[in-house]
Amino acid sequence: MVASGGVIPFLMPEQRNQEFMQALPGFRDFLPHDCAVRNYIFARWREVTRRYGFVEWDGPVLESTELYKKKSGAEIVDQLFNFTDKGEREVALRPELTPTLARVIAAHEREFKKPLKWFSIGRFFRHEKQQRGRLREHFQLNCDIVGETSIAADAELIALAIDLLRGFGFSDDDFVVRVSSRDAWLSFVLERLAPGQNTSSVNDAQFRRLLDILDKIERQNEKDTNAQLREFNASVNDVWAWAEKTRRILEDPSHQEWLGRPGTTLSNLHQLLHQQIIPRGLKNSVEVDFSVVRGLAYYTGIVFEVFSRKRKLRAIAGGGRYDNLIGQLSDGGTQMPAAGFAMGDVVLGELIRDTLAAREQMQSAIATQGKIDIYIVVAKEERRPDALAQIQKLRENGYRVDYPLAPAKVGKQFQTAEDLGASLALLYGDEWPQVKVKNLATREESLIAHQALLDSVAKFFNISASA
Amino acid sequence: MVASGGVIPFLMPEQRNQEFMQALPGFRDFLPHDCAVRNYIFARWREVTRRYGFVEWDGPVLESTELYKKKSGAEIVDQLFNFTDKGEREVALRPELTPTLARVIAAHEREFKKPLKWFSIGRFFRHEKQQRGRLREHFQLNCDIVGETSIAADAELIALAIDLLRGFGFSDDDFVVRVSSRDAWLSFVLERLAPGQNTSSVNDAQFRRLLDILDKIERQNEKDTNAQLREFNASVNDVWAWAEKTRRILEDPSHQEWLGRPGTTLSNLHQLLHQQIIPRGLKNSVEVDFSVVRGLAYYTGIVFEVFSRKRKLRAIAGGGRYDNLIGQLSDGGTQMPAAGFAMGDVVLGELIRDTLAAREQMQSAIATQGKIDIYIVVAKEERRPDALAQIQKLRENGYRVDYPLAPAKVGKQFQTAEDLGASLALLYGDEWPQVKVKNLATREESLIAHQALLDSVAKFFNISASA
Repeated sequence: MVASGGVIPFLMPEQRNQEFMQALPGFRDFLPHDCAVRNYIFARWREVTRRYGFVEWDGPVLESTELYKKKSGAEIVDQLFNFTDKGEREVALRPELTPTLARVIAAHEREFKKPLKWFSIGRFFRHEKQQRGRLREHFQLNCDIVGETSIAADAELIALAIDLLRGFGFSDDDFVVRVSSRDAWLSFVLERLAPGQNTSSVNDAQFRRLLDILDKIERQNEKDTNAQLREFNASVNDVWAWAEKTRRILEDPSHQEWLGRPGTTLSNLHQLLHQQIIPRGLKNSVEVDFSVVRGLAYYTGIVFEVFSRKRKLRAIAGGGRYDNLIGQLSDGGTQMPAAGFAMGDVVLGELIRDTLAAREQMQSAIATQGKIDIYIVVAKEERRPDALAQIQKLRENGYRVDYPLAPAKVGKQFQTAEDLGASLALLYGDEWPQVKVKNLATREESLIAHQALLDSVAKFFNISASA
Repeated sequence: MVASGGVIPFLMPEQRNQEFMQALPGFRDFLPHDCAVRNYIFARWREVTRRYGFVEWDGPVLESTELYKKKSGAEIVDQLFNFTDKGEREVALRPELTPTLARVIAAHEREFKKPLKWFSIGRFFRHEKQQRGRLREHFQLNCDIVGETSIAADAELIALAIDLLRGFGFSDDDFVVRVSSRDAWLSFVLERLAPGQNTSSVNDAQFRRLLDILDKIERQNEKDTNAQLREFNASVNDVWAWAEKTRRILEDPSHQEWLGRPGTTLSNLHQLLHQQIIPRGLKNSVEVDFSVVRGLAYYTGIVFEVFSRKRKLRAIAGGGRYDNLIGQLSDGGTQMPAAGFAMGDVVLGELIRDTLAAREQMQSAIATQGKIDIYIVVAKEERRPDALAQIQKLRENGYRVDYPLAPAKVGKQFQTAEDLGASLALLYGDEWPQVKVKNLATREESLIAHQALLDSVAKFFNISASA
């Protein structure tokens, strides 16, 4: 059946129903296995981030739309899930955490000693076309250091990003942190157009045009790029040569004199490498790469992105210094230097699945985490009340215990015990008032008095735990 | 300045800014302490629920509005955060989890052995007036058993609700689970209007009117209630007498004959008490209370609510059996018995704060959880690269380590070490290549070679951990 004259796709009632019985496009259901993967990622994020002395915080997932316009301009609204609520408020599902951080810092910074090392794990939303690694609802870890201008904060964040990935079983062969700074391109513009002058002579709009060109340089054909670079008296080759020359100079600890030249304030990046990354032994995880041009409208210093070495996936993580943003969002109320990064769950999840060591580590962690300790086999229904009393006591003592809610054959109950990964099965049946205890790994069986079971179980798990 | 002729409250630019710099009404910012409280609640929820063999799952926070209308009727939309998205879809922030569960079960139930024991922890949203214990965004634990008709599932959920509260340090003096069933009121209607007949003779609309009356019986004056009860040939006193009589009969294990009477299918509740709650030793945590009348439109069997004994707070948790809901939401595609309950973070959080034992347990857990292990004191800036190398190594070995990002006085650094709850301080200064190790609890100091520090620290924490 086709609706006569209709141009809008027509859904049959059953199709409509089918659609409404699925998650919305770009949203995910987390069945138990997917949820275990998600929890594994969150647990590693929390564990490693806390090693760095970060403390967790969070904001609401719904904020005033104004907060995002203020940071990113009115055009951001096209990518938001935003609406007018029943109180006539313009609200949006958060696309990122930084505006909320700025809002909370402006309101509360006096309550805390600086620098703040804060992290957060939560859901974020974008109304964009679905594609691989890009969903409408995803999860992000955000780590920020607020109130510290020193390059040590940038280094702390980069070291943390590296340790986070190592925490998932990745090595230097799997990923690399690419650090960059727009200062390299400020000095490029000076060199090409106004040699010997300082950065204040660089036209801001012209500089942004250069950054836009750089952002597209690998995707656009060289001829077009050369045409665009003409206003800088430069070619694609000049750009790459400059990037490479600057990179080499930065990686050489003796090139202090060059860094002192007016307008070439790349000394931060030089310091980062030689006073922070190298002493920490992280040289092999970090590369200077000036082709990384990342939201430079709001970053004010070093920026970095973490990429897979093997695959052309989107960045695993990215961030940088944004010393002006909190001031700008609070209308100048709170000037506060800050740096931070975010790591999403989607690209990271794909990389884990595609990398043997990381995948095996995850599978093993999930399998261990999902196991129960003890399965109670109710072999005689008359013994169910005694079994229930034992189950209650074992759970109160912290054991993970399961049992058949309804009567079932003994063989099927043992199968369930295996499926749930139980270490012990306790059988309530003819042996009463003794209980048959079966070690499901070794198949050993013994008879223990019902009343003495708790002690016996405690002994078993202490022995297992220390083995 | 007042806007001429304006009737809409006019905000000065600064006021507007102030408003936009706060969370939306009914939404919360979680500063580190608030987030630690939230994490504590989540951790206890997860830990105890897993003891019962439940596995975690989750859905999106945004769903089709249709999903909620289908369960609760069009009037639910008044309480939703709902809107039309940019793809012309009618969507809503989830007010509860059960419709998502029904959707996911209908799509995936064949992949799992029944019964399913699933739990989920997440954010939920309601567009309602703010009041104590009632926010627009809150968190809930949801626990459901799907695919099991036996009363054992209801008992498992009630036992879990009790152990969850015990897990927070509450005792039988603090809370009580009130169990109820509409069957008690079906037999009341029969007794008053059609003695000897069976439940099919009860008019559904009339029965709903009775439930509405019962729901308001404690808030409304007795005269009005008596007027409403006239159609049942009953008074408020008759209602209470019936509730009390039924409660007494249920609590007496010998009253099997009464339960067998046609239309009085209260035997489930009798079984629940005598075959499940009493054997588990949970009698003192459970009361039969027929004044609990809870969303009876969709519950089909036993319902229960958990209340504080001391305070007139809203219910801490509530749930029951809903054997028809999954079938109804999937248009009959998947008939599946189910029972479940939800526990919110807001009322629970207030009860923890108001109860000494629970509050102390929480404070102690949060203090322990928030501590770092080691603080590195950089007494000489020349030693910073060596300190950084050590910090990196310690963190890679799983220790929580912090240090001053920028140069600071030694005294201030020790103060920070204390503030962060560090067990050890390692001082990098004149003693180089030795490092001064200070036990911050005992004030003992020793000198250890930089190269041997990791072993020494490992020994310290093993000793501390087993002490």
